[in-house]
Amino acid sequence: MTTWQRARGAATTSQLLDVVRSGGPISRVEISQRMNLTPAAVSFIVRGLLEQGLMEEVGRVASNGGKPRTLLAITPGARYGVGVHLGSEETIYIVSNMAGGVIGRLCCARRPDLSPSDTVDTIARDIDVLLNALGMKREGMVGVGIVAPGPIDYPAGRIFGNPSLGDWSSFPLRDELSLRMNLPVVVDKDATAAAIGEFWGGRVDAPLSFACVYMGQGIGSGIVVDGSAFRGSTSNAGEIGHVSLDVHGELCRCGNRGCLELFAMPATVVRRARERGMDFSGVRPASEARLFDEISRRAINQDALALELVRESAEYIAEGVLTLVNLLDLDQIVLGGPGFAVAGAIYVQAIRATLEHRFFARRAHAVEVQFSKHPRDAAALGASALVLQHELAPRP
Amino acid sequence: MTTWQRARGAATTSQLLDVVRSGGPISRVEISQRMNLTPAAVSFIVRGLLEQGLMEEVGRVASNGGKPRTLLAITPGARYGVGVHLGSEETIYIVSNMAGGVIGRLCCARRPDLSPSDTVDTIARDIDVLLNALGMKREGMVGVGIVAPGPIDYPAGRIFGNPSLGDWSSFPLRDELSLRMNLPVVVDKDATAAAIGEFWGGRVDAPLSFACVYMGQGIGSGIVVDGSAFRGSTSNAGEIGHVSLDVHGELCRCGNRGCLELFAMPATVVRRARERGMDFSGVRPASEARLFDEISRRAINQDALALELVRESAEYIAEGVLTLVNLLDLDQIVLGGPGFAVAGAIYVQAIRATLEHRFFARRAHAVEVQFSKHPRDAAALGASALVLQHELAPRP
Repeated sequence: MTTWQRARGAATTSQLLDVVRSGGPISRVEISQRMNLTPAAVSFIVRGLLEQGLMEEVGRVASNGGKPRTLLAITPGARYGVGVHLGSEETIYIVSNMAGGVIGRLCCARRPDLSPSDTVDTIARDIDVLLNALGMKREGMVGVGIVAPGPIDYPAGRIFGNPSLGDWSSFPLRDELSLRMNLPVVVDKDATAAAIGEFWGGRVDAPLSFACVYMGQGIGSGIVVDGSAFRGSTSNAGEIGHVSLDVHGELCRCGNRGCLELFAMPATVVRRARERGMDFSGVRPASEARLFDEISRRAINQDALALELVRESAEYIAEGVLTLVNLLDLDQIVLGGPGFAVAGAIYVQAIRATLEHRFFARRAHAVEVQFSKHPRDAAALGASALVLQHELAPRP
Repeated sequence: MTTWQRARGAATTSQLLDVVRSGGPISRVEISQRMNLTPAAVSFIVRGLLEQGLMEEVGRVASNGGKPRTLLAITPGARYGVGVHLGSEETIYIVSNMAGGVIGRLCCARRPDLSPSDTVDTIARDIDVLLNALGMKREGMVGVGIVAPGPIDYPAGRIFGNPSLGDWSSFPLRDELSLRMNLPVVVDKDATAAAIGEFWGGRVDAPLSFACVYMGQGIGSGIVVDGSAFRGSTSNAGEIGHVSLDVHGELCRCGNRGCLELFAMPATVVRRARERGMDFSGVRPASEARLFDEISRRAINQDALALELVRESAEYIAEGVLTLVNLLDLDQIVLGGPGFAVAGAIYVQAIRATLEHRFFARRAHAVEVQFSKHPRDAAALGASALVLQHELAPRP
């Protein structure tokens, strides 16, 4: 019967590692309860992980009348991964350990004049710079996770690019980076990585279904269901920025009309501020990201026009989140990405109010809305987590 | 290593049964390839299912040089389930077998004057009437699946009801029906059941992610990912009818504005037809469902006004489907429910055109749009499938 149940259990090594990372130190008995696995199956998987040095026994606690229970925890320094977030204005590099701890970080302005191939050369050099500074070596890394805005071609390990990244559709990103680094590489969507980063960083508890709504230059979302990324058919799920809020509205570059991005993204808020005469003299550099941060700062400081503009953006994002939650019936929303770094509180408030009064299944349960623990780095951290997950527990 | 992989495998008995049902007759080797399971794990699970009489060996095929492979198939008559679809105008009952075959069907007008308790008495009597007519007994049934429009309270086995069903929120539906029938009962959402019904009925291949968009009085959708219902936190996922197509639009009963239902549901099409002077004399009974069928029939027969009205409804539904696909990155859309029974072709066409030109990840993959095999009965058939799945392969 135990083998039967083991064969049937939906547990993967990667899920068990996640439970120990987010819930440890934890006993085998607790793991078996949380994962609906038999004690025999848990012991078996744990034995393998102990042998690989991925987790360790860290102490004992008394249990009711029985023999003391041994507690297990992740061995943080057992393995390391590199995460790369390819954004439109900058590239962020993170080296993280098994426990989601950030060992090192590097942020470089992206050179938009470079071809995909030259960009990948630069990325490989930047990773070496970061590793050298940390006194680490390529060979000590499990691999590299690289993430970018969607759409992506997940099976092929490619990204398509967008107007600010350029056209990457014919460039074999995964294979080229892997060749230059001599390491395994996984390619994924930035918002999916941000969601995994929140989970991996311990912000979100294991059994929840949640989305990380990510605002950079555009607006996306990554979805995690029961601790695993929900990818859809080709890892392109979660495109909240292209949910139409007005089907007869303005045409978007994606081909759809009235997309959320058009109403709420930083560039739109900056344009509206300019149209309404907001003074940006002295704000340098006058990039969209910098100006949006400035408007966000003024909104937090109660500047009436800035507050109105940021609230408007927040209310449109709340509409998109409502649609996301009505379709996926999520427990929790986490806001991440540089767009929420300054005025996140205003966005949290708007989304909470909308879900409280208009979520279709609000009589069945409430939806929590939270703010990211590391809004600027979630995608890069998640990229590193993705390659650690991928290389430590590949599917059979 | 094999036990390790078995312990890790995401396979459940229920998934294996699904693979055999939708892909059988099939050999153990093929099952192991499709499910990414070791041959040892497949043999182990199959042995249990053969012992329970749920599947059988049906023949052998030669394999390349090796010994002939034994083919496995579901034993259709091994178990039976009862499905009940509680709709606003009628209640549909289906008795189905393990293979998704319909053994018997009963359709009764719903009496809106009855309380939830009296309605459940009626349901229990109707089920007995159907079983008697089939020469079957309650004891031969695995259980009863009952489904209704959302929102529902899945963990508690309750439905909330709506304006046409009345208020069911304080009525313990699962427990009361189980008491009257002396059988296990599962309660779920009609659109989720319809999606499972499509899958169970063999319309959709196993590894796909798809949604069944269901139009009855309202519009909902059920989502299946890798062969299992995607339920979200409380089985309320898929509320496409309450996706806003115009965030500044008309207020909906759900609290949101500009919901898809308001633009596209049968009642709206009937109202618009009346406003534009369409003649319904002689159409009996003059119920909304009947009048909508009539408009749909005229549209199919190229009546200009009817065609315009149905196309308008179809285009709005296409907008909602686009949002659903952008958020879930699905492979396939299946249209089910009585609302699509007559003019489904017009809806299929509109959705195909929209996805082809405006799906965000269209460069990554196409989305297939199909028409249900049993548009009126998918939810009741799925309800029966849900109780069969639930009782045959409960989670550990």
